[in-house]
Amino acid sequence: MDETLLMIPGPTRVAPRVLKAMSENIVNHRSAVFGEILTETTEMMSEVFQTDNQSYILTGSGTAAMEAALGNIIEKDDKVLTIVGGKFGERFMQITETHRGQPVKLEVEWGHAVDPKDVEYILEEDDDIKAVTIVHNETSTGVTNPIDKVGKIVKDYDALYVVDTVSSLGGDDVFVDGYNIDICVTGSQKCLAAPPGMSAITLNDDAWKVVDNTETYNYYLDMKRYRKSGSAKPPETPYTPSVSLMYAMREALIAVMEEGLESRIERHQLAALATRNGIKAMGLELFAQLEVSSNTVTAIKIPEGVTDKELRGTMRNKYQIELAGGQDHLKGNVFRIGHMGNITHREIISTISALEMTLKEFNLDVCLGTGVAAVEEAYLIG
Amino acid sequence: MDETLLMIPGPTRVAPRVLKAMSENIVNHRSAVFGEILTETTEMMSEVFQTDNQSYILTGSGTAAMEAALGNIIEKDDKVLTIVGGKFGERFMQITETHRGQPVKLEVEWGHAVDPKDVEYILEEDDDIKAVTIVHNETSTGVTNPIDKVGKIVKDYDALYVVDTVSSLGGDDVFVDGYNIDICVTGSQKCLAAPPGMSAITLNDDAWKVVDNTETYNYYLDMKRYRKSGSAKPPETPYTPSVSLMYAMREALIAVMEEGLESRIERHQLAALATRNGIKAMGLELFAQLEVSSNTVTAIKIPEGVTDKELRGTMRNKYQIELAGGQDHLKGNVFRIGHMGNITHREIISTISALEMTLKEFNLDVCLGTGVAAVEEAYLIG
Repeated sequence: MDETLLMIPGPTRVAPRVLKAMSENIVNHRSAVFGEILTETTEMMSEVFQTDNQSYILTGSGTAAMEAALGNIIEKDDKVLTIVGGKFGERFMQITETHRGQPVKLEVEWGHAVDPKDVEYILEEDDDIKAVTIVHNETSTGVTNPIDKVGKIVKDYDALYVVDTVSSLGGDDVFVDGYNIDICVTGSQKCLAAPPGMSAITLNDDAWKVVDNTETYNYYLDMKRYRKSGSAKPPETPYTPSVSLMYAMREALIAVMEEGLESRIERHQLAALATRNGIKAMGLELFAQLEVSSNTVTAIKIPEGVTDKELRGTMRNKYQIELAGGQDHLKGNVFRIGHMGNITHREIISTISALEMTLKEFNLDVCLGTGVAAVEEAYLIG
Repeated sequence: MDETLLMIPGPTRVAPRVLKAMSENIVNHRSAVFGEILTETTEMMSEVFQTDNQSYILTGSGTAAMEAALGNIIEKDDKVLTIVGGKFGERFMQITETHRGQPVKLEVEWGHAVDPKDVEYILEEDDDIKAVTIVHNETSTGVTNPIDKVGKIVKDYDALYVVDTVSSLGGDDVFVDGYNIDICVTGSQKCLAAPPGMSAITLNDDAWKVVDNTETYNYYLDMKRYRKSGSAKPPETPYTPSVSLMYAMREALIAVMEEGLESRIERHQLAALATRNGIKAMGLELFAQLEVSSNTVTAIKIPEGVTDKELRGTMRNKYQIELAGGQDHLKGNVFRIGHMGNITHREIISTISALEMTLKEFNLDVCLGTGVAAVEEAYLIG
């Protein structure tokens, strides 16, 4: 059994009760008993999305849900305003291109959040924008975009607002209805702390209207088929779902409900604050701008005197803590600590402590205990 | 814990050792340890496919793999010879249409297998056929198509041979290389007896050549991305895979290897023969033509005097055995017994026995013990 502590931005540590749920016998996916499980799970999903819409659970990663979002509303040459400030913003752009849409790229410097005024400017200038895509929490940079403010702008234009909350839902405020989000997607293995392999999507009536008028190239991810099967009695999925992962998803969502969404988000906020304070106290530099830094993942510049491989290798091999590296041009320049899902002060303390020891080992100028003290202080103040 | 015995054509009963594998801790999907698991699993997959090609495991159902097969080789107006003799043949046709290909439909009466000569005739008449799709084991009718003979024909033409072995691989002979199959797909939850939610695909060099020259609309199912990530060191999947299901898939494939592929197929053959003999001895009528009947699923005409709901409801509620109904126009007219995966004489006996009691309960003319005796006889002869 691998006991390495996952401090990466997904998959996150899954609670034993959720792992255990997967060992239940498989049931017929077209039966009343599975219909009930599906209903219960999708209803909890809508509750977490804070929406009155129906939610759908897909067997596939967050990327599958991102493609389900765009592939069902985009036809050739449709313009999509794509906010790109990291790898997952880029992914929305690539999906737009794959579906022969025309991305209107709003480039944001990695580490920064989008300025809602820039979105307004483009929408004002261009009447043909059919959809706006935004990544709430850019996992690659540790930046949170202001999806509430951008939502207020987009609602005044005739464009669908498509939001990726893969690495934020359950760890940060996401009000699908309250933020005027038309299509929202998320993943199982991030703040919801279920195993990877499932994702979820919710669409409001405006979005469905577009879906109904779009000739999609999606078959496996055809949302019209999901809607049809989902409204059968008992409700079903169009294709065989991962029954075991649905058990896990249900159990993970029950755990979210037991904790309470608000408390869960506060726990994430505190873990993020404690991590940042610990990192700064050690003399390391944060990659993202402080005022837009993420609740769920922190990107840190790799200090002089140690390489990415040395730093993360020591953390993994000597201290059994798995950190994430940088992606694309950040590879070798930053490392990332995921503090999402079931994370508590214990994991943050362990991580910052191991990091202190690792840096010391490479003769960096670090005063043992300083980072840990800052974490403790953050938790004491709360 | 649901103890209903699944005698449906997938998902099938999953062995405790495989369920248990899923309760292992989640590891980083971009790590050496996961890379090893992925390598081991895909290598075993190629062994089961009986191919020298690389195999890829997708997080998604068999339908995802079917779309991965066609969506990566079809462009607008490309002609696809689609052999349709059941629901899954139709699915290949629908996927062709979704990707704007032009299906050339070779319709086969449900319950019958395709005549290879008909395939030859169409290929001879039409030079433009880019691919031929065939479903090895038509789950909806319990028919096995002669993929070996059709393969011998297709290889003489400039068309890719795309074979769905979702409900046959591991329970019937599939020699991907030996049958000249260019693209082969399968699912996790059928004869391989892993939980649902994963599928696999393998492509030979001829297929890759077409993939490399096709502008796909697939993003999540873009095989070029799978190839690229798969050849990284350590090997990865392009998007976060279902780590837990990969554990299960590996364990299920190890179990297949332990049993031996040939023995496993013989076990399936015997279970199919015993089921058919039991059914016939009870005086019920098989739906599929006997000489092309499936190793893994048997479709049976619902006799006069009992409805589908009564028959399957009693089997489920009184005897805790789940059977499958008919699909599409066969709904209410046939029921299906899946005898795939980990099925032994015990489950076949239990099922035939419960069926005898059920029919008796509805006052049908059935002599208790006759079906069971026929099953026993089949197993005694072996």
